[in-house]
Amino acid sequence: MTPQELDALASDVVQRAPYEAAELLEAQKDEDAIAILEIINPLVGQQILRELDDRRRSELIAAAPVDKARQWMKNQEYPEDSVGWLMEPPVAVFRPHMTVRETIEAMRKLTKKAFITYGYVADESNKLVGVLVFRDLMLASPDKKLSEVMYPNIFWLNPEMALTDAMKSTLNRHFPVYPVCDEEGHLLGLVRGQSLFEARAIELSAQPGTMVGVHEEERLATPVKRSFWMRHPWLQFNLLTAFIAGAVVGLFEHTLDRVVILAAFLPILAGQSGNTGCQALAVTLRGLTLGDLKTGEERKLFFKEAMLGIANGAIVGLVAAIGMFVYAKTQSNPAALMLGVVVWFSMVASCVVSGLAGATIPLVLRKFGFDPATASSIFLTTATDVVSMGTFLGLATILI
Amino acid sequence: MTPQELDALASDVVQRAPYEAAELLEAQKDEDAIAILEIINPLVGQQILRELDDRRRSELIAAAPVDKARQWMKNQEYPEDSVGWLMEPPVAVFRPHMTVRETIEAMRKLTKKAFITYGYVADESNKLVGVLVFRDLMLASPDKKLSEVMYPNIFWLNPEMALTDAMKSTLNRHFPVYPVCDEEGHLLGLVRGQSLFEARAIELSAQPGTMVGVHEEERLATPVKRSFWMRHPWLQFNLLTAFIAGAVVGLFEHTLDRVVILAAFLPILAGQSGNTGCQALAVTLRGLTLGDLKTGEERKLFFKEAMLGIANGAIVGLVAAIGMFVYAKTQSNPAALMLGVVVWFSMVASCVVSGLAGATIPLVLRKFGFDPATASSIFLTTATDVVSMGTFLGLATILI
Repeated sequence: MTPQELDALASDVVQRAPYEAAELLEAQKDEDAIAILEIINPLVGQQILRELDDRRRSELIAAAPVDKARQWMKNQEYPEDSVGWLMEPPVAVFRPHMTVRETIEAMRKLTKKAFITYGYVADESNKLVGVLVFRDLMLASPDKKLSEVMYPNIFWLNPEMALTDAMKSTLNRHFPVYPVCDEEGHLLGLVRGQSLFEARAIELSAQPGTMVGVHEEERLATPVKRSFWMRHPWLQFNLLTAFIAGAVVGLFEHTLDRVVILAAFLPILAGQSGNTGCQALAVTLRGLTLGDLKTGEERKLFFKEAMLGIANGAIVGLVAAIGMFVYAKTQSNPAALMLGVVVWFSMVASCVVSGLAGATIPLVLRKFGFDPATASSIFLTTATDVVSMGTFLGLATILI
Repeated sequence: MTPQELDALASDVVQRAPYEAAELLEAQKDEDAIAILEIINPLVGQQILRELDDRRRSELIAAAPVDKARQWMKNQEYPEDSVGWLMEPPVAVFRPHMTVRETIEAMRKLTKKAFITYGYVADESNKLVGVLVFRDLMLASPDKKLSEVMYPNIFWLNPEMALTDAMKSTLNRHFPVYPVCDEEGHLLGLVRGQSLFEARAIELSAQPGTMVGVHEEERLATPVKRSFWMRHPWLQFNLLTAFIAGAVVGLFEHTLDRVVILAAFLPILAGQSGNTGCQALAVTLRGLTLGDLKTGEERKLFFKEAMLGIANGAIVGLVAAIGMFVYAKTQSNPAALMLGVVVWFSMVASCVVSGLAGATIPLVLRKFGFDPATASSIFLTTATDVVSMGTFLGLATILI
């Protein structure tokens, strides 16, 4: 394949769900498939490798350069969406007692086959003890030992770290490459900053979908049938939760029968508290994504969202209450004023609860080990529907 | 400040909205403020620079290294969230007739003050004509001219390009640094791949919020008062749209008065079509974000979402219809079967329309020059509320 053809194929591959990309690669020649796996983001590469059928995967691993193949197999041992999945083979690793001259000579050979940004110094047990910067090597006297020119304070990532945590811990470090080490400091691989953020951007673009039950693998190119099977279970789950909201309204059928004007305000309250809750949900999710939420600061967040719920509910509720009052008056309803009061109170109450629910749901999901966005919008709308319509119809039952 | 203190301050700065980060930096010494601006993502840096008061900004620009300062001022001329905002000064720029020996000598000096990944070759008019890779320089004979060792086929970014488009065009290129040139190919600056994806990840994490009217600048640390002013207008707008949904229900008050059992199914239909629509919305937004949607392929997307709406609506509708039938039977409603049929038909119709609305809204927003996520969820729920409850109550009025 020409570089242009490879480029086109790579574009095609990264736009598909991994299992479809795997089908595409199964049909390619070994060297083309390997070239694609080397071009694309290593996370996507690993996802595709996992989806390949066993025979094809073995063939590709056998045909790939040895260090790449070994790394690919090692990476598969780590959890998906962890730093381990993004590792590239550590090249340019030297011993502390080597001289600058020897190192430059070795580097000269290494740069022929790999793109090298930093050199690494490891001891006999492969424990990382220092990082080398080209500039220092170029300027140091050729007989100095690496232990004298290396930087001994090293920031490294752990392979089991979730990408989201890795992104947080590197957000203001800005290094082009990060070493990955185990707990004892043994060098396992390298991760490019770009790969990390690229993988994270792909993940993040899935978040609005995750909130409403779209699978992270679904892309525009996913066939209808598969999209159906991935989305449908969550829609059934959503129906189940919607039944709860329906049951709440059903409970007050008698009141609705007596004061039918209430019905028109049900979607208004539900829609309003739903959107208020989604704002709190989105801000909280973003806080978790970017690492803004410190442990122990949850209380501050809840307080803030409760305050916002009161303020927003009070003003929006006033407009809605006036709407209700005018609407009831045109129908010559004698309880027009009280209806307005009921709308106002329920709006304030439901905006406060929505704000709190929006801030709580992602934290609870995370606590139970889920992605904090998982179906969060489904849980939220259930809560806001139940509270907003329940308060509204409950108050109306008592007061009107 | 010690490096640790700078690191802590940088973390603090990137967790705030730009105007708050600017307040934080106004109190710092010049050299510390400049160090922070150099550490953090250049996009965030530019946002902060813009928010600084004029006097303080001039002071910092005067105190910063000349090439940095010049670049900062130049970057401010480009639209926000464009590649231009991320540019760093082009270092290591050479003329084509220079020899490899001269270049290596010059590089040696340059690497003392900057982190250099590639060299660039530009002609007298500063037009970019080639890229230099260190490896080639090291291995080439010292008397060769740069025009003989450079790569003449250069991929560059345009400074006016939106970050989202830049991310799409670099997603499978994986270069650590991209040159930025104007239309004629004059070199304007460099953008690190990492900066690009980092900035994009920060942007992307705002998307779920943008969909429901949260400002991109709002972070967990944003004070309550400011959060209120940023969120409230959208909540009023949401109320306005909710009134439309309320008005639709109001139109059928007579029917609800006659068949009050319908009321309990209003939140079920609204919730269900809302979530179906949000799934389509999320998948479409992701397609736009990752560049999966080719022009001319919109029809395919609409067809897919319509098919999914039919399939999901038919099955979910069946469950809901059975629910309605059983519920009506327990109330000894003679129209139980017809009520079930009405639920089923409205569910199918509203899921199809929701799917289509979810796919259409971001495309329309983009067409009018908005971020395709802007308030998309607010527009969507209005559409799904109106269609689902309108169809349901309309059919019930005719058939029961």
